[in-house]
Amino acid sequence: MSHLPDFASLRFRDPGTDFSLDLSRMGFTRARLDGLEADFAPVFASMRELEAGALANPSEQRRVGHYWLRAPKLTPDPELRKEIKVALDEVLDFATQVRQGRIVSESGAPFRRMLLIGIGGSALGPQLLASALPAGKGALHAHFFDNTDPEGMTDVLNRIGTDLPQTLILVISKSGGTKETRNGMLEARDALEARGLDFAKQAVAVTGVGSALFDLAQQEHWLATLPMWDWVGGRTSLFSAVGMLPAALQGHEVAALQAGAAAMDRHTREERLSGNLAALLAAAWNLATDGAGHKDMVVLPYRDRLELFSRYLQQLVMESLGKERDLDGNLVYQGLTVYGNKGSTDQHAYVQQLREGVPNFFVTFLRVLEDGHASDLLVEGVHGSADFLHGFLLGTRAALSEKGRPNLTLTLPRLEAFELGALIALFERAVGFYATLVHINAYDQPGVEAGKLAADEVLCLREQILGTLYGTPVDFSGMMSRLGKTADPETTLLLLEHLAANGSRTGVEFRDGCWAKR
Amino acid sequence: MSHLPDFASLRFRDPGTDFSLDLSRMGFTRARLDGLEADFAPVFASMRELEAGALANPSEQRRVGHYWLRAPKLTPDPELRKEIKVALDEVLDFATQVRQGRIVSESGAPFRRMLLIGIGGSALGPQLLASALPAGKGALHAHFFDNTDPEGMTDVLNRIGTDLPQTLILVISKSGGTKETRNGMLEARDALEARGLDFAKQAVAVTGVGSALFDLAQQEHWLATLPMWDWVGGRTSLFSAVGMLPAALQGHEVAALQAGAAAMDRHTREERLSGNLAALLAAAWNLATDGAGHKDMVVLPYRDRLELFSRYLQQLVMESLGKERDLDGNLVYQGLTVYGNKGSTDQHAYVQQLREGVPNFFVTFLRVLEDGHASDLLVEGVHGSADFLHGFLLGTRAALSEKGRPNLTLTLPRLEAFELGALIALFERAVGFYATLVHINAYDQPGVEAGKLAADEVLCLREQILGTLYGTPVDFSGMMSRLGKTADPETTLLLLEHLAANGSRTGVEFRDGCWAKR
Repeated sequence: MSHLPDFASLRFRDPGTDFSLDLSRMGFTRARLDGLEADFAPVFASMRELEAGALANPSEQRRVGHYWLRAPKLTPDPELRKEIKVALDEVLDFATQVRQGRIVSESGAPFRRMLLIGIGGSALGPQLLASALPAGKGALHAHFFDNTDPEGMTDVLNRIGTDLPQTLILVISKSGGTKETRNGMLEARDALEARGLDFAKQAVAVTGVGSALFDLAQQEHWLATLPMWDWVGGRTSLFSAVGMLPAALQGHEVAALQAGAAAMDRHTREERLSGNLAALLAAAWNLATDGAGHKDMVVLPYRDRLELFSRYLQQLVMESLGKERDLDGNLVYQGLTVYGNKGSTDQHAYVQQLREGVPNFFVTFLRVLEDGHASDLLVEGVHGSADFLHGFLLGTRAALSEKGRPNLTLTLPRLEAFELGALIALFERAVGFYATLVHINAYDQPGVEAGKLAADEVLCLREQILGTLYGTPVDFSGMMSRLGKTADPETTLLLLEHLAANGSRTGVEFRDGCWAKR
Repeated sequence: MSHLPDFASLRFRDPGTDFSLDLSRMGFTRARLDGLEADFAPVFASMRELEAGALANPSEQRRVGHYWLRAPKLTPDPELRKEIKVALDEVLDFATQVRQGRIVSESGAPFRRMLLIGIGGSALGPQLLASALPAGKGALHAHFFDNTDPEGMTDVLNRIGTDLPQTLILVISKSGGTKETRNGMLEARDALEARGLDFAKQAVAVTGVGSALFDLAQQEHWLATLPMWDWVGGRTSLFSAVGMLPAALQGHEVAALQAGAAAMDRHTREERLSGNLAALLAAAWNLATDGAGHKDMVVLPYRDRLELFSRYLQQLVMESLGKERDLDGNLVYQGLTVYGNKGSTDQHAYVQQLREGVPNFFVTFLRVLEDGHASDLLVEGVHGSADFLHGFLLGTRAALSEKGRPNLTLTLPRLEAFELGALIALFERAVGFYATLVHINAYDQPGVEAGKLAADEVLCLREQILGTLYGTPVDFSGMMSRLGKTADPETTLLLLEHLAANGSRTGVEFRDGCWAKR
């Protein structure tokens, strides 16, 4: 929109994607923003080095290559460049063969559904795509195992119902060792075998070459094994086979997704703060939170199809920025908390607190100009339902601004595959910039291991407890002496509670203060 | 579990529901907790008065009666008592007739699906029930319109597909004037009429007597009109027709839901801090957040079926506690931020930040002892998938505690209708107690109106803009002079962008810096 009075010096636009960013309600001036220009020089330089193949993830001594996935020609290493292209071709070819009925189920019938088994970065991206983009013609209907709750898995299997023989199973795990995913695979395999089906004839693996999952898939001759690389983090793996395989199977426009991300990547290579939407976002986060996560980011997309985007950002932002130490090893306790669902729905849930309550946040409004395949019905005077949706966004923005609650608005021209790709790429880059600005590693997750190790210990204790439950019933102190001094009494008690509550499965009974095993 | 060593002086249990609460990882001592006992005397007294019919919502001069809904005999007013009972009977009777095929669709075929149209308190509770409890035999499959995004509504209608003639439509709005719900109703009506169906013959209203929606339903002879009352807030309306009608239609055990809530209400009438789980929760929130919302509450239920519970709590807690002023009119900016999805899934999304990053939260773990209709498969040694789920909960709890990140654990014996009712009632009471403790009104939402009024102004301006778009194309300054001085230029520009982006619907075109209407 040229020829317009420039009344908003804090409104910025990328002509390539037609995205625009309004920072005018964040409570800082243009001069304050421009004052950050010098801070961004090293930030831009660092990103340039990352894209050129530097070891940008120092704790894991890895390169960071998710930007190469949508622009292989920029890959510094020619061999890698080829690998990326070959992998994408393989993904698209496999999906085409499935959708055209050339790769079929054991019975010869075409696949009608897909069950994606993954967690975290191996599930949230595909789930976002499935909910944000309409399925193409003849697409496979998508289901997910994204946890190790067997009841949840049973519910999914019940929804698949008699289509199970025509369900393609995607097992996705970069390391190939994620327990939740392994468990989901075993539960799915069990369900298939109970119906006399051969798991290998319906299964595809997406995993790193040489992982346990890779070996299993090779050994059992699964339908396909598609690659993951250690230079792609789970939370930024959408443009690898992790996201592109389910996207292609659901009939999404993979080329447009990639093109949108690549276009945003090009834009966010601009090494000038006011000409780079990702840098502007990072600068806004920095000013809003004192560069220390002092405020939460509430994400409110005014579009049903973007409801999962807040959760996607929650993972991308919090796992990338939530760090104990900076790059020099100083304790910094960094982070940026993200939550939100969708507008206007959330107005009826917690905008009360946002407008009047504890001022511990800034809002990110997502505004989409084209209404999509909307009805033309006028619901009140000259207005349709979509005009109310847009009106509520502007109204809530005004109501929050009036109370000095900082908010920014990101406007998308429309919500198609190209824009979704660009949107994801925009935040990936903003997270990368911000991490450099506050001097942390955005690409590792050292804190995740501790919970897994602690869980291993818990399961080890569970096995010990089951081992001691023989012969006569034993009371708590008897149990503790059987287990020995290393066992933690509280964890022991919690495990016994769980064992006894599931006696029909575990055989453990609790009676008169004593436990026994049938 | 009696006969056990009392090694956890901060673990508490309600024998009636078998819920237990572990506050031992919150970073305070039992003595510190006990020190709050005196503060709770007026809190208990205030709740007693509320239940006896006091005007506990002073700003709206209303009584607060959601506890009466599950124990009508406690209703202070005999007439009201009768109304509650009659309404519940009516709900159950209507649902039974639908499910037994005595109330049928226009064609004579039984109803197979329900489409609930509501937002906020009129949608989130029913959505929670639909996802947290398995559907009963012959139940209606549930769909929701919970926003005014016409594209989202079209997607729901596409999922309903050819079943539309056999879809019961529930329109739920206490005030009967919620725009999103009104729009949803008009879109649904339009879709039905396009297929030659009579909306009134498929529709049910749940609304306050005398509302616009009430009048419409009466006038058009809808299938039924069920009551809402001004002494039940939207966010606590689950046990009125709002939640009980969809529950009954989905075959949930309404009596068990009510009994669970009533049992928890009985327990939380105990006027002794250490003997009252809701008071203990309120005390824990108070100690964790300095009674000022200084920390966020992260809610992690380790059970797929409880995934929506965090969102339900987000509304209940933030809308109730997010207040600008206390009961004496002092500026306090209160609140308690709530977010979360489910464990162990969220471990792979943001537990990195929880363990290592900005320490701005405490965690509420929800632990369910019975695994439900789980598979018996052993996935590793002696462990099943559910044992991993439980192990990850205990492991993450340990990993967070190790880093001094406060967390509490609420344990439920199982997750059936009784426990879900009790769980909701527990947090309703905790919110009420906490509000009294920090001296605010938990039952109004004065900040919500501002956004609606601002949206009205936006739509009013939109109408004006459309009115000025006649004759020759007009540029921005021409537009502003046609609109007059009261029009806000920025809002005008944003509306013009939206109008032009949807030209096929609005007829507005933008060309060479000028707008025109076809």
